[in-house]
Amino acid sequence: MDTTTVETKKFEILDTKLDSIWAEIFQKSKLIKEIQSGSIDIKMYAMYMFETYHYTLHNSRNQALTGVKCFDKPPHYLRYCFEHALEETGHELMALHDVKSLGLKDNSFSIPNPLPETEVLIGYLYHVSSTGNAVRRLGYSYWAENAYKYIMPLIEKIKGLYNLKDNQLTFFMAHSDIDDEHFKEVKEMIEKYCVTEQDWKDVEEVMETTLRLTANMLDGVYNEYQKLVSNKSNKYNFLFALDNN
Amino acid sequence: MDTTTVETKKFEILDTKLDSIWAEIFQKSKLIKEIQSGSIDIKMYAMYMFETYHYTLHNSRNQALTGVKCFDKPPHYLRYCFEHALEETGHELMALHDVKSLGLKDNSFSIPNPLPETEVLIGYLYHVSSTGNAVRRLGYSYWAENAYKYIMPLIEKIKGLYNLKDNQLTFFMAHSDIDDEHFKEVKEMIEKYCVTEQDWKDVEEVMETTLRLTANMLDGVYNEYQKLVSNKSNKYNFLFALDNN
Amino acid sequence: MDTTTVETKKFEILDTKLDSIWAEIFQKSKLIKEIQSGSIDIKMYAMYMFETYHYTLHNSRNQALTGVKCFDKPPHYLRYCFEHALEETGHELMALHDVKSLGLKDNSFSIPNPLPETEVLIGYLYHVSSTGNAVRRLGYSYWAENAYKYIMPLIEKIKGLYNLKDNQLTFFMAHSDIDDEHFKEVKEMIEKYCVTEQDWKDVEEVMETTLRLTANMLDGVYNEYQKLVSNKSNKYNFLFALDNN
Amino acid sequence: MDTTTVETKKFEILDTKLDSIWAEIFQKSKLIKEIQSGSIDIKMYAMYMFETYHYTLHNSRNQALTGVKCFDKPPHYLRYCFEHALEETGHELMALHDVKSLGLKDNSFSIPNPLPETEVLIGYLYHVSSTGNAVRRLGYSYWAENAYKYIMPLIEKIKGLYNLKDNQLTFFMAHSDIDDEHFKEVKEMIEKYCVTEQDWKDVEEVMETTLRLTANMLDGVYNEYQKLVSNKSNKYNFLFALDNN
Repeated sequence: MDTTTVETKKFEILDTKLDSIWAEIFQKSKLIKEIQSGSIDIKMYAMYMFETYHYTLHNSRNQALTGVKCFDKPPHYLRYCFEHALEETGHELMALHDVKSLGLKDNSFSIPNPLPETEVLIGYLYHVSSTGNAVRRLGYSYWAENAYKYIMPLIEKIKGLYNLKDNQLTFFMAHSDIDDEHFKEVKEMIEKYCVTEQDWKDVEEVMETTLRLTANMLDGVYNEYQKLVSNKSNKYNFLFALDNN
Repeated sequence: MDTTTVETKKFEILDTKLDSIWAEIFQKSKLIKEIQSGSIDIKMYAMYMFETYHYTLHNSRNQALTGVKCFDKPPHYLRYCFEHALEETGHELMALHDVKSLGLKDNSFSIPNPLPETEVLIGYLYHVSSTGNAVRRLGYSYWAENAYKYIMPLIEKIKGLYNLKDNQLTFFMAHSDIDDEHFKEVKEMIEKYCVTEQDWKDVEEVMETTLRLTANMLDGVYNEYQKLVSNKSNKYNFLFALDNN
Repeated sequence: MDTTTVETKKFEILDTKLDSIWAEIFQKSKLIKEIQSGSIDIKMYAMYMFETYHYTLHNSRNQALTGVKCFDKPPHYLRYCFEHALEETGHELMALHDVKSLGLKDNSFSIPNPLPETEVLIGYLYHVSSTGNAVRRLGYSYWAENAYKYIMPLIEKIKGLYNLKDNQLTFFMAHSDIDDEHFKEVKEMIEKYCVTEQDWKDVEEVMETTLRLTANMLDGVYNEYQKLVSNKSNKYNFLFALDNN
Repeated sequence: MDTTTVETKKFEILDTKLDSIWAEIFQKSKLIKEIQSGSIDIKMYAMYMFETYHYTLHNSRNQALTGVKCFDKPPHYLRYCFEHALEETGHELMALHDVKSLGLKDNSFSIPNPLPETEVLIGYLYHVSSTGNAVRRLGYSYWAENAYKYIMPLIEKIKGLYNLKDNQLTFFMAHSDIDDEHFKEVKEMIEKYCVTEQDWKDVEEVMETTLRLTANMLDGVYNEYQKLVSNKSNKYNFLFALDNN
């Protein structure tokens, strides 16, 4: 078996794992089911976009940090880290723009703190980016840059549901555009810098863990929404403004 | 209502929350049920002790880091952080001693990497300790120094089950001894440094999140054990040596 | 030659080096000469105490950080780091108390930013504490805990010059009291954890570098004072209040 | 006075300061005088290139870190940080290539540790990049991207002295090429993000401090060379191989 075939096999292992985790998420996530059934409240969607704002704010930073803390890989890998960080910088503002475009006035709210589930994801990504195997953060990019085939139908559903224009979905549109190119790069990096079995395992572990933590974040949004509508929390009360649109 | 009463109420809120999370954990955790039913395999217990080793290795460090990164509280709070760090330092070696005392020879294994669930807990604690509200790490200590009433019956069960002597349970014995004193200090710190509603909420959030992540770690151990005994992973194969004891 | 003798020799090498650096500092430092001649302006002394405030604020933090970042030494060394951090915590407030006792009213000033020379020392200590050989920060403690024989005559001079009471010199008094015990501990740590020639060299390098950076800080104070009295900077104008005392 | 004029004035203040610091360095630096007189030993030049390797290894990292730790500036500033980091990544390998091209065989040496003066510069830059005013690191870039007019004559001198080809001076050639463009960007960033007087002061302070620390590094090289040729240190003994070329 030549090298290419060996690595093709390894990517197939990642892809099979990924497929099964996504399947599990689609089966279990109540938030996703709300989208699929067309019954998702615009306030729940808005809450999800605020969490997207939060983790995205840190993604370019922890991506760059991976390069800052890496001393055992060639400059080529650092360049990838800094370039990828560069391309992700400021994308949180797209998420913020999109949620505001739903009908939130600038002075009617301040951005709520992230949910604990979101902070768990953020904290884990900083930990992964600053310690341990320097290539393992690629596991996060592997699914994140390759997620649109899974989530595009959900976005289309939301688009139709709230009658959104493209310029109200800038976060997702921007990412779907650059995705294919990024994903190719991520695969090249994995192929180049995953040398040992342990490297591949570390990438797989971070892939699985960050995807599951992201799914937990969806659950967190769903649960927080229940608190909002049952008056158990007033943190997102400003979102009731969206009901009048 | 005088100050003491107000704070008593706030602690009651924490305690009620804590009780309900523990109840949920006891109801859901398959690992705990294995202990309660007396059917827990010694290999599963050993795997749990390795994870205990891992997160404990970082606990004194992230506790000290809370003081290193805190610039908005009086020296008194930093002293608490450093003193508490001091007292926790090296406790991971007790966990390691205890698991080895089950019958693992020094050269028969190297300590396995932490499970992803454990790394998630570790990463979150570093994040909590180095960013955001400097008092919020107290939420972790609040339940951790107050856990023995919940887990002592489980430890007693394990002790009987494997016929362990006290000197094979040094980790738990040491902690139960120092616990009461520590818990008193943690409460004093919370009373002194939780000034705003947000402070109390931040402590509560970290309390809940770290306890839930610890429960996830138990689930991780349970799942990894299934991989071991179904030959899907050989990472812990060295533990089969314990079956002969 | 037995071990003790070998190590005695190594300490003698450190001490001889230290003596020669101190001699050089005493010969070159204009600030020290101002003290010795009894002509030092109280404003220059006050400026020095503000810099003392700044680096002391970070000393306990970088001492603790040494333990946080150290994964290749036994818990005993971490305990030393956290305990030493604990003892140094809050000492910056003594320096602040002492400078205020000269006659500065609480609302007449805000603490000026550190001089660049002080930030260089602070930055180097964080770097030493978070990277490289974990024992090397002991080189800083080696001279800092052993400095009073060199600087006590200067403090006595200042005391007489401005007619200060002991409770206006709390920073120096506190340190001279605890010094002997600390210095013994520092030597024990060096003896125990300097195993290779490189370990001793690393400690010596940090000893020399931090002492020289501290001397640079004295020069920085001297130069900044010249700017104050020649009206080239108004950063410390609030110190003119001391002239009326 | 319109805005442009105001900022032109401020840049003139920086430039005047810079000119005077460079003049002072050219007057005091023994290493520079050795170059100017044409008497610099190739071993001293090689030692300087090793230090260049060391600080350059960290420059892209601390530049990226500035973006990682900055939460109070628009994405535009982070993009600058990551892009500039990207462009500097791996330049340490040019310095290493150049010093090896003088006649060092790959297996005849391992890269010596940085001199303490170099570690002081590195430590200060990490400190500046991770704390305090996020724009202040621009002060380092301001002189570093604008240094070639000062140092090009020295490089030309060295080129002639050792009869070097362009491909033995890749580090300096690469930087002189990209310099003009970079310097323009640095000025744009300073203009855009230095809003208050304090911002400009912070940039000026870091400009002055890092240039002086770089000059200290030259002194460090000069002094270490004296140790080499007087047999007081054998750290760079492998450089005697260059005498045979």
